[in-house]
Parts: sequence; C-alpha cells; structure tokens
Amino acid sequence: MDRPRFVIDAVEAEQMAKQSGKTVLQLLPSLVKSAQSVARPPISKYHVGAVGIGSSGRIFFGANLEFPGLPLNHSVHAEQFLITNLSLNAEPRLKYIAVSAAPCGHCRQFFQELRGAPDVKMLITSSDDEKENKISNTCNDKDQEFTPLSHFLPHRFGPDDLLGKDAPLLLEPRRNGLSFTSDGGENDELKHAALDAANMSYAPYSGCPSGVALIDVEGKIYKGSYMESAAYNPSLPPVQAAIVAYVASGGGGGYERIVRAVLVEKSDAVIKQEHTARLLLQCISPKCEVKEADEGEGSGGDGGDDGKDERKRERKTKKEEQ
Amino acid sequence: MDRPRFVIDAVEAEQMAKQSGKTVLQLLPSLVKSAQSVARPPISKYHVGAVGIGSSGRIFFGANLEFPGLPLNHSVHAEQFLITNLSLNAEPRLKYIAVSAAPCGHCRQFFQELRGAPDVKMLITSSDDEKENKISNTCNDKDQEFTPLSHFLPHRFGPDDLLGKDAPLLLEPRRNGLSFTSDGGENDELKHAALDAANMSYAPYSGCPSGVALIDVEGKIYKGSYMESAAYNPSLPPVQAAIVAYVASGGGGGYERIVRAVLVEKSDAVIKQEHTARLLLQCISPKCEVKEADEGEGSGGDGGDDGKDERKRERKTKKEEQ
Ligand SMILES: [Zn+2]
Ligand SMILES: [Zn+2]
Repeated sequence: MDRPRFVIDAVEAEQMAKQSGKTVLQLLPSLVKSAQSVARPPISKYHVGAVGIGSSGRIFFGANLEFPGLPLNHSVHAEQFLITNLSLNAEPRLKYIAVSAAPCGHCRQFFQELRGAPDVKMLITSSDDEKENKISNTCNDKDQEFTPLSHFLPHRFGPDDLLGKDAPLLLEPRRNGLSFTSDGGENDELKHAALDAANMSYAPYSGCPSGVALIDVEGKIYKGSYMESAAYNPSLPPVQAAIVAYVASGGGGGYERIVRAVLVEKSDAVIKQEHTARLLLQCISPKCEVKEADEGEGSGGDGGDDGKDERKRERKTKKEEQ
Repeated sequence: MDRPRFVIDAVEAEQMAKQSGKTVLQLLPSLVKSAQSVARPPISKYHVGAVGIGSSGRIFFGANLEFPGLPLNHSVHAEQFLITNLSLNAEPRLKYIAVSAAPCGHCRQFFQELRGAPDVKMLITSSDDEKENKISNTCNDKDQEFTPLSHFLPHRFGPDDLLGKDAPLLLEPRRNGLSFTSDGGENDELKHAALDAANMSYAPYSGCPSGVALIDVEGKIYKGSYMESAAYNPSLPPVQAAIVAYVASGGGGGYERIVRAVLVEKSDAVIKQEHTARLLLQCISPKCEVKEADEGEGSGGDGGDDGKDERKRERKTKKEEQ
C-alpha cells in the first residue's frame, strides 16, 4: 500500500478521478479506506476514516486518534481530524465529506462551527448504514448519495445561537492579537510557533484562545490551534490539534519522537488548557518537555475574541437567567 | 421562588397537573424554567434546563454545570445531568423530555445509550426554535409537540454498532463485580461508596468502570458512576456524576463544602480517570482531599464489562483494520 497522504491538490485529484473514469466527487468514497488505514485507535481498535473536498478542489483526509491512560474525552474523531487538517492547510470551506461510519453527535455538533455547515454534503460508506437506515432525503443527480448535514443534525444548536451573523467562523481568517508581555524567548522558535497557533485559535465563546507547538527529534515543528464549539464539550484542545498536525505530516512516527512542547494561553483565562495538555503529552511521550508561555492581556485583534461577541452572548442569555 | 427540586414523585406530579388543569405531559414544559434556575454556568452564563418523565411517572430535573479553570470538555450539559439524575434514582426508562434550548449533538449522542432512545420524545421550549425551525414530523394528539429523538439524530451511531442486542444499556441493572484486593479501609464508608459507584458504572465499550464518592462538611456522601458513550467523547466521567449527585441533593451549597473524595477504578485500566478527577476537584474545592483506591482484577460480574462484548466488538471491527 502507498505511503499515507493527508492532502491531495486539486490538479492531482482531477487526474486521479479521470484515470478511474469518475468525477472527483465520485472518487471520494473510494478514498475512505485509505483514510481508515492511518487511524490510531489503540483503545477501540475501531478505525474511522473521513475524506473531504474543500472549495479549492483539494482533498483532505482525517482519521481517529485515541490515547490510552486518559479519559475518553481526549479522543480525536476522524471528522475533527479532517476539519483540523483543513484549518492547517488554510482551506476556507468544506463542501463534501465521505465517512466510513455514521458520524456521532459530537462530530455533527463540531461541524456546526463551519460557515454554511447545514449545506455541507455527507455520505456514509459503511454498508450497515445503507441497509439499516436507508437515507431518505438525499440530493439528486450530481450529488449522488450525498446528504446535507442539516439532515443529520436538524434544529441545531450552533454559532447562530450565540454569535453575531458576521462573526468569523472556524475556517475564516482571524487574528486574536496576542503577544508576549514579558521579555525573553524572543528567539525561541517553538514559543513563537505556539503564539502563532494561539493567534489563529478559534475561541469566540470563551474568549480564551490558545495554541500549542511541538518539536520532534528532527527539529520539525507542528502547530495546533484550540478550536471551540458552541456546545462547549466538543471543543478541540490545542494539544490535540498539534498532534493532528504531527500525524498529518505523514511521517507515521510514534509520539515519543515529540521531544518538546510549548503552550500559549492568556494568563487570566477562564479556560486553562495547561494541566490537561501536560497530562496528554506525558501519556504519549513521557520524556517530552512541556512549557507554558503565558500571554499578557490580549490587545484586541479582529476576531471573535474582542469582547463584542461576549457582550452579545450576555445580552442574548439574560432572559434565561433568574 | 420555591426551593429547587430535582425529583417529583408520580403521585405529586399527577396532583400538580390536576391543579393546573393539565396532564403531566402538558405540565412538563412549564417546569423547564425551574430547572434552568439551578444551573451553574459561570463561564457561559447560559442557563439550560431539562425536565423528563420516567416510566415510573416520576419527573426529573437537569441543569448545566461549568467549571472555570479547566477545558470546556469538563462541562456537564443539562441533558446529561438529567440522565445522571435518573440513574441516581434507579429510574429504568426515560419517556419524555422538555429542554430550554435545542440539545447539542454531544447530548443527542449521549441519549443513545438509553434503551429505546430513538423513541424518547422531546420538546424544545425556546421560542427561537419555534420560529426559526418549525419542527416538521411531530407526533399527533396526546404527545402534542413532542418529537422522537430519532428525528434529532437520524442514522445514529450507537450501542447497536458495538454491542450485542442483549447487552445491558445505561439505566439497566448491572454489577461489574469489582472488589478491593488489598486489605485496609474495610471500614472506610467513603471508599465502599466509591466501590459501589464503580460497580454500577456503565463502561461496556472500554471495560473500565469507575466510581467516585464525595463527602461534604456535614458527613453526607454523594456517589457518581462513570457512564460511557459509544462515541467515546460524550462519556461522563465519575467525578462529574458525583457532582451531579451533590447538586441534585438540593442543598444548593458551594463545591467547597466537599471535603474528601475517593475514586475507584481498575488498576490495569486503559482508561484512567484519576488525573482529571484530581484536576476537577482541585479546581472546585481546593482543600478537598482526593484518594484513589485501585481495584484488582474485576472478577467478572453480569454486566457489559465481562469481556463478552469486548470480543464482540473486536470481531465487528476486524474488517475495519488493515
Ligand atoms: Zn464523532
Ligand atoms: Zn448538550
């Protein structure tokens, strides 16, 4: 079998499709098995794969990751891996997704952070699903058996319930405006990579962006940005995002190759990633050195973390309170 | 306003309904505001309430809990609180539920652990939902505007995908057969309460049941059993379950009144609750003394953790592996 790949560019995707006499969309389900093959599920042994097409025409892969020694809440599902992969590659929009098993509610919820989430089209490749739950209102013609996400999570709870209509969503550009207040470490590349990741973090609900940078034995750096969910629990912590970046780099190496990590978060944050980040890294790479580099007060930024949305949420929920 | 309540017995529920010229089912939505009032969401300030009717005719309340200082994954949603409340009161089945806001995907997924989950009927009381997303295929007549859960999470991923049809589900009786191997602590009431909780834990997917017992300044004990989700991430850790028991005892006191905690889990468990349990307790009650009492090898039990289901799962997923 070929070395696993995590992104296929638009030109190559077209070529691959042409070679097999298909459209790129028709090709998508056939790539799911390859995505499953890169899963790392030592607990469940249940390999899940997800493959998506972005608005650029590129194809992205995702697979599930599990971490023995910690509660299951630390797992990364294939769909979250896929979305993280889009984010790592600055893909602005997810259009289609094919998955090996019916996505769980947690993932259907996480998808809601994408602009136009209800219109993302999904196809489940497992035969179980086909025979037990024949999907009813599928799209016609060119979309084949792809079904809009709105069908899988109707009456959603999502960004609309908490943010303004023009707030930037998950894959949209933002700068959180974080910078280090103290001196020292200006020439620490890893620390600056973590700050970069924190500045790209999507945390419109808590206003607590964070980022992690990992470095491996070869000196290669992997950045992960915290990504929040309107429903809180499905949020993807920054270490998990960085581990996705590590796996998606394609090396296929063990986590013990990760030798140093830096986490950046606000010093006054109500959401603290530090302790669980350390736990996870200790579990997967016991010798990894972990540092936290606190950021001072965020200087504003143009993203969803400038307090505007927070006030909006306060107003919206006022009526709910006693 | 009356002191908050978390369970109303069947006779009183009938009386309350009669007094307001309604059926118990018609009464349910009017109780949601009272459930919202007991929420503890210091991060979001978003008060969510859930009220359910069990097969016994009793009414149960649930509300959301948030914990500053930790990642958002540690939050407890109102729906999970409600299900924990049913479990604490040995209610075998959930029939109807009314919630203040559209349930998130994480909760829709957690509901799947209940026997007959697709047929649980739900109503969302928020006016937003009514105007924006008029629910289509509602039930008729006596069910009013309640809609089956299958509508909210179609093509579900759930216990059916991983367990045998006759495996006990979430609110169904089980004994995990755990006992202490070492001597000592036989007369420690809190330790035995934690063992009890671990023995009632629902962990059919990992085979790693666990339980927590808390004791407050007055010597009152609260037990919480770990409850697993087929989708892993929505699993409710044992400390969260014990905190639900504490809140649902109705005292309304602060968490700093919790002075001692014991966690029981298998010593060879692949899922370890210990570290995150300590983190959460340190956050909410810094002076709380936390002990872990490892259990030896589970001696079997009649529940879902006896290895039978595990083998089944292995077989089922064999085809997914490379
Ligand atoms: Zn999932
Ligand atoms: Zn929820």
